[in-house]
Amino acid sequence: MENRYCVIMCGGIGSRFWPFSKAARPKQFLDFFGTGRSLLQMTYDRVSNIIPVRNILAMTNEKYAPLVKEQLPELSDDQILLEPDRRNTAPCIAWAAYHIRAINPNAVMLVSPSDHLILREDVFKDCVTRGLDFVARYPYLLTMGIQPNRPETGYGYIQMGKEEIDGFSRVKTFTEKPDFELAKVFVESGEFAWNSGIFLWGVNTIIDSIHEHVPDIAMRFDKGLGKFGTEKEMAFIKKEFPACPNISIDYAVMEKEKNVFVQRADFGWSDVGSWGAFYEKSPKTETGNVIRNCKTVLSGCENNIFAAKQEKLVVASGLKDYIVVDDDDILLICPLSEEQKIKQYVNEVKANFGDEYL
Amino acid sequence: MENRYCVIMCGGIGSRFWPFSKAARPKQFLDFFGTGRSLLQMTYDRVSNIIPVRNILAMTNEKYAPLVKEQLPELSDDQILLEPDRRNTAPCIAWAAYHIRAINPNAVMLVSPSDHLILREDVFKDCVTRGLDFVARYPYLLTMGIQPNRPETGYGYIQMGKEEIDGFSRVKTFTEKPDFELAKVFVESGEFAWNSGIFLWGVNTIIDSIHEHVPDIAMRFDKGLGKFGTEKEMAFIKKEFPACPNISIDYAVMEKEKNVFVQRADFGWSDVGSWGAFYEKSPKTETGNVIRNCKTVLSGCENNIFAAKQEKLVVASGLKDYIVVDDDDILLICPLSEEQKIKQYVNEVKANFGDEYL
Repeated sequence: MENRYCVIMCGGIGSRFWPFSKAARPKQFLDFFGTGRSLLQMTYDRVSNIIPVRNILAMTNEKYAPLVKEQLPELSDDQILLEPDRRNTAPCIAWAAYHIRAINPNAVMLVSPSDHLILREDVFKDCVTRGLDFVARYPYLLTMGIQPNRPETGYGYIQMGKEEIDGFSRVKTFTEKPDFELAKVFVESGEFAWNSGIFLWGVNTIIDSIHEHVPDIAMRFDKGLGKFGTEKEMAFIKKEFPACPNISIDYAVMEKEKNVFVQRADFGWSDVGSWGAFYEKSPKTETGNVIRNCKTVLSGCENNIFAAKQEKLVVASGLKDYIVVDDDDILLICPLSEEQKIKQYVNEVKANFGDEYL
Repeated sequence: MENRYCVIMCGGIGSRFWPFSKAARPKQFLDFFGTGRSLLQMTYDRVSNIIPVRNILAMTNEKYAPLVKEQLPELSDDQILLEPDRRNTAPCIAWAAYHIRAINPNAVMLVSPSDHLILREDVFKDCVTRGLDFVARYPYLLTMGIQPNRPETGYGYIQMGKEEIDGFSRVKTFTEKPDFELAKVFVESGEFAWNSGIFLWGVNTIIDSIHEHVPDIAMRFDKGLGKFGTEKEMAFIKKEFPACPNISIDYAVMEKEKNVFVQRADFGWSDVGSWGAFYEKSPKTETGNVIRNCKTVLSGCENNIFAAKQEKLVVASGLKDYIVVDDDDILLICPLSEEQKIKQYVNEVKANFGDEYL
């Protein structure tokens, strides 16, 4: 147990749920499903079941420090690592690995996004426990592969090879979002799993892989040896972190590394990456409406999402398959089928009205 | 000029424009057309061109006193008559007539709603001037009849008889909102005009008619003779006004009185009694959207009304022929074709959430 660490990545900012999530309060900080806990808090609840609380780290952007402290009061300040700049997941995970290794050179770590939904926490707990045992024993990178139930084109896919160790398969290929036909072939073949972005590995294993595949990141962090885990760490990070390449761990390491294994998992996972996914996972009224927070008087409205502030009264008529989000200073009304256009709207808003509304 | 008075009725409260207009700030107090002046202020501007400002009275409910004072700072407190209760137009006009007669027994008065739109003010000025001359000369009630340009079913119609005096026709019948077929017959006959609710008469003429047709109102106000125009007036009104029957001047007097004349007028009038009328009279974008106050980013939106607060950004996609109104605590989204259902929604809101949102 002492060697188990968790890194919760919660510095992301997406515009797909704008204006429900905004730059000042991204998705992971929202009570997305009306449970009373934000997605970040749900992530914390899930991992604190498995990993000692003092071994949990939250990696976030420094501007979200107040939000993380407010939402995760269980973490002490030195468990919240504040990125001085946005550099995608590879530098983030590299820092976390160097930091943890300085504290415990035998550590194994679970890397978890903070904005996903996992419904079956007992299955998750069992998977993580077995996965951490695996990466404690073998110098391999392990990724959680979700059993696909449909030809989803919004996810990355992992192809599993024949070689198995302790029931985990060696990864053959990673494929980013395929088109529908290809996704169908993938799912039907039985050889593919969805890439959940949940990773497990020993700190030394990942640091070795970073050296091999992204040496510029490794060399930069190597300069800080002796500083990680000390009071000199933040000054070092402030200087070096922004100089790291902006690159994802998938692209920088996972897709290049030969020793990646996948653990097939089926714990009711969704990355909640779209309004469609949010709609699908949410409880609905008899007429198929998802109502988040607000009061409603609806007539002839079917299969919509209504999200607004607690005190808002939404009176709507004749809307079908729409997203209606009302924030203090923004109202979005958009067909669910056009949700991919929301990013365009955000760009247009930015061009016309500046950052004020983002 | 000294004998000319104007009574602006601004105590009404309608729910047809809810939540754009609400009980706390009904339609007449709103800058409906984005001109910078409310409908009440536009009414004041229009009549103060014709009638001495000191002879203009605003009749309103006592709860709207602060709004009237704020919007019409030109009026002194004794020009704002505050109704202690809602009793429709007959008691309101009776009070105004008794009040004015006490000040000037030779007065003629123009009675004007405060929530209508009149586009051609010069024509209006000319009509009112000629109308006031007419009622100064003859003991007749005069009503402004608008030249109809379509078989509108939302208006009342006035049938004009053959008898004419000074170019004004004696009224034959009043007909409340006809059905479409009947309205067509009315318009094609050339004998009918729309009832604008704008009246002109001598104070003695209207008080005589009230005696004849609604004696209970007349007798009640007669008890206050000697008090009108004095400091005793309000105490008297507080006691007697609420005891008056709740009845309109049309029903109580106009439809019963034989000596009613109509002045045909064509000054670009609309009672702005519906979102459809509002839409029709408002400036539109290239794609036919009416945008009141708010900022917008629109995609595939045609022929909608968007009304919100100045600072609100409305981002909408794929809406056609909708009314979208965003108020602080209420959001309404409703097809323009279903605007008559808004009253139902208001009732439902009231039943479910109380008066808070009205």
